[in-house]
Amino acid sequence: MKLLVVDTLDVARRKLLEAAGSWRLESEQVKISEAIGRVLSEDVYSLEPVPNFRRSSVDGYAVRARDTEGASESLPVFLGVVEEVLMGEEARSDILTGQCAYVPTGGMIPEGADAMVMVEYCESFDENSIAVYDAVSPGRNMVSIGEDMKANTKMLSRGTVIRPQEIGAMASAGIREVPVYKEMRLSIISTGDELVDVDCIPDKGQIYDINTCALEALAKKHGFKVVHSVVLKDDELLLKETVQKAMEFSDMVVVSGGSSQGKKDVTAKVIDEIGTPGVFTHGLALKPGKPTIGGYDMETETILIGLPGHPVAAMMVFELICVWILEEMTGKKKSKVIYAAMETNVASAPGKSTCQPVELLETENGYMARPIFGKSGLITTLTRADGYTIIDMNKEGLKPGEVVQVQLF
Amino acid sequence: MKLLVVDTLDVARRKLLEAAGSWRLESEQVKISEAIGRVLSEDVYSLEPVPNFRRSSVDGYAVRARDTEGASESLPVFLGVVEEVLMGEEARSDILTGQCAYVPTGGMIPEGADAMVMVEYCESFDENSIAVYDAVSPGRNMVSIGEDMKANTKMLSRGTVIRPQEIGAMASAGIREVPVYKEMRLSIISTGDELVDVDCIPDKGQIYDINTCALEALAKKHGFKVVHSVVLKDDELLLKETVQKAMEFSDMVVVSGGSSQGKKDVTAKVIDEIGTPGVFTHGLALKPGKPTIGGYDMETETILIGLPGHPVAAMMVFELICVWILEEMTGKKKSKVIYAAMETNVASAPGKSTCQPVELLETENGYMARPIFGKSGLITTLTRADGYTIIDMNKEGLKPGEVVQVQLF
Repeated sequence: MKLLVVDTLDVARRKLLEAAGSWRLESEQVKISEAIGRVLSEDVYSLEPVPNFRRSSVDGYAVRARDTEGASESLPVFLGVVEEVLMGEEARSDILTGQCAYVPTGGMIPEGADAMVMVEYCESFDENSIAVYDAVSPGRNMVSIGEDMKANTKMLSRGTVIRPQEIGAMASAGIREVPVYKEMRLSIISTGDELVDVDCIPDKGQIYDINTCALEALAKKHGFKVVHSVVLKDDELLLKETVQKAMEFSDMVVVSGGSSQGKKDVTAKVIDEIGTPGVFTHGLALKPGKPTIGGYDMETETILIGLPGHPVAAMMVFELICVWILEEMTGKKKSKVIYAAMETNVASAPGKSTCQPVELLETENGYMARPIFGKSGLITTLTRADGYTIIDMNKEGLKPGEVVQVQLF
Repeated sequence: MKLLVVDTLDVARRKLLEAAGSWRLESEQVKISEAIGRVLSEDVYSLEPVPNFRRSSVDGYAVRARDTEGASESLPVFLGVVEEVLMGEEARSDILTGQCAYVPTGGMIPEGADAMVMVEYCESFDENSIAVYDAVSPGRNMVSIGEDMKANTKMLSRGTVIRPQEIGAMASAGIREVPVYKEMRLSIISTGDELVDVDCIPDKGQIYDINTCALEALAKKHGFKVVHSVVLKDDELLLKETVQKAMEFSDMVVVSGGSSQGKKDVTAKVIDEIGTPGVFTHGLALKPGKPTIGGYDMETETILIGLPGHPVAAMMVFELICVWILEEMTGKKKSKVIYAAMETNVASAPGKSTCQPVELLETENGYMARPIFGKSGLITTLTRADGYTIIDMNKEGLKPGEVVQVQLF
């Protein structure tokens, strides 16, 4: 029997990055309202200052601050009212010494004025003038031009994942469209004579296909565009034709299945025959995830990945290899991990990394991570998991109380 | 001037729950492939055991374990091969003493056999028999019926947010459709004479409307269905008509705007006139978020919320009130918080809770939270924030090094 020379996770990732290194996801312009969750492919600069006029932050009177010097509750100063500025309209007056104008919250402050007095500190004196009972300093109760954002400054960096607040900030600066990476086009091929689609009734000896639907959901969550997904019988020629066809319209093709020794070789053989340079990783020093294949085709610029057939292993490797390369290529900011103390010890196999699913329990001082054990084929273990932690290949497992980083899953 | 009697966040939430307490989101059946991110409205039970036949977890021979007793590398036992089980097909034989059958990984184990010997420990002896060099105990190298999941047992609980692994687990148990809560139908109304749609060019004194697009994105992220969003000029009658119309096809209507004292009252007045019982919260002891209005209409079963006009405050209150009630009504599991140590101190106002945006910095021992300051109207502050922490109204701010819970945002 041919023994696999397995790569560590780091080596497999480096080889993948080298193989596909020259390759770039294209960029496209999308409307900001449709940009949620997308990744910026360029830095975004503000077009204009925000705000681009001086805005009041209170209901009150725009004044020259010097005019209010010495004003107090017992000793008001008197100012002539020359204008009532309306919301959304341009202030027309130029405030001179001894003058003021009414401005509502968010309204435009007229020329000449340099501060706002809150309406609570003012009183009508006669038809055209008010008494002011508060002394204000210049800039008080107002937002200056560009105070939120100057013009032509970097607002957002390449790699930013667009959230609601980024959409709001871009809208405030008058940005209507934004350059984002095109979604990575993914084809998912699941192989196995025992697999039937979830819409069919399995015969004895058959099982429902889990991998296409679970991987499709996982891929969409991470921003892939699933362009094709199919379940195939085990047939080398059929697999080869299907992968070749998928390469025409995909950036990445994943083939899951082939848990038995003979079938694993078929996926590797097909990827090696189709791709240039073909297979560069054949086996991963990862538990679960050993039967992983990494390959590439330069001509069609397609990443070709063979995933384990076991659903849990397939999902883990998809996260650790396929999502990782997407994040590398887009400079996407990594999502936050959770730090947690292990509840019990976990043994790990020397010489290979271990991907350990955990449940997070709240304690007074933070989270405790309870490891979830189960054979790698049993997907129900993952429904109890909040995330996973990677145990380094050079570590001899984890001790109770040891703090680990948990990636939510 | 009428002073608002403000509610604490807890009181406002309790009043909202009481007002809308009899009201339930409806349930609907969706295909599991379309259920990602949805919330289960009922517990989900497995239909059949998984697996529903005994599966091999290795390539090898199905044997009666007793037959292998005493077998070792130097002393094999010999067994007659009566069948080669094919993947996805029913095993036909009944293994008797002295017999075995070849079964690939994932294949069905024939009756009579109770363990698998890995192919690595077997050798062809003659055309119809093999030498076995390993002693196995019953159950070895196989998955029993129902080992992943028994039939008619609770797989998933009401309130579970469906992730890729839940889809996979349901597929494995033959579940095709699943009961989830219908999405809450939300209308977003933004008011202000100064607001122009982001597709228009603002005149002097006007600003781009931020709230409709930011709130729409925020609402979608949390599983609302935005059925209507519109920017209105400040006009009481127009607002009243628009809210009334929206109530016909919405479960919740939010009106943002009215930062100035006079306008705030208009939103409250309209909600009070339209709704039964109308306004129950007028002002929130939350910074930012004071000009928040909580109301309800029993007849149309619509939650009516007035949000502050400032975008940051509007988004915070949407999270803390609107998202909170959706989570309460669906029993949706809360997302995980991040524990972090404050980098610097933060002052807070006595008698009101403070919603403090923070940036999370990685350190050797976990996260440090750096507070982000800025006037509440300046949305760019939120683009630098990873999340926020709520400072309790009874606390006098936060000290450096103090550990806080950060909600990612």
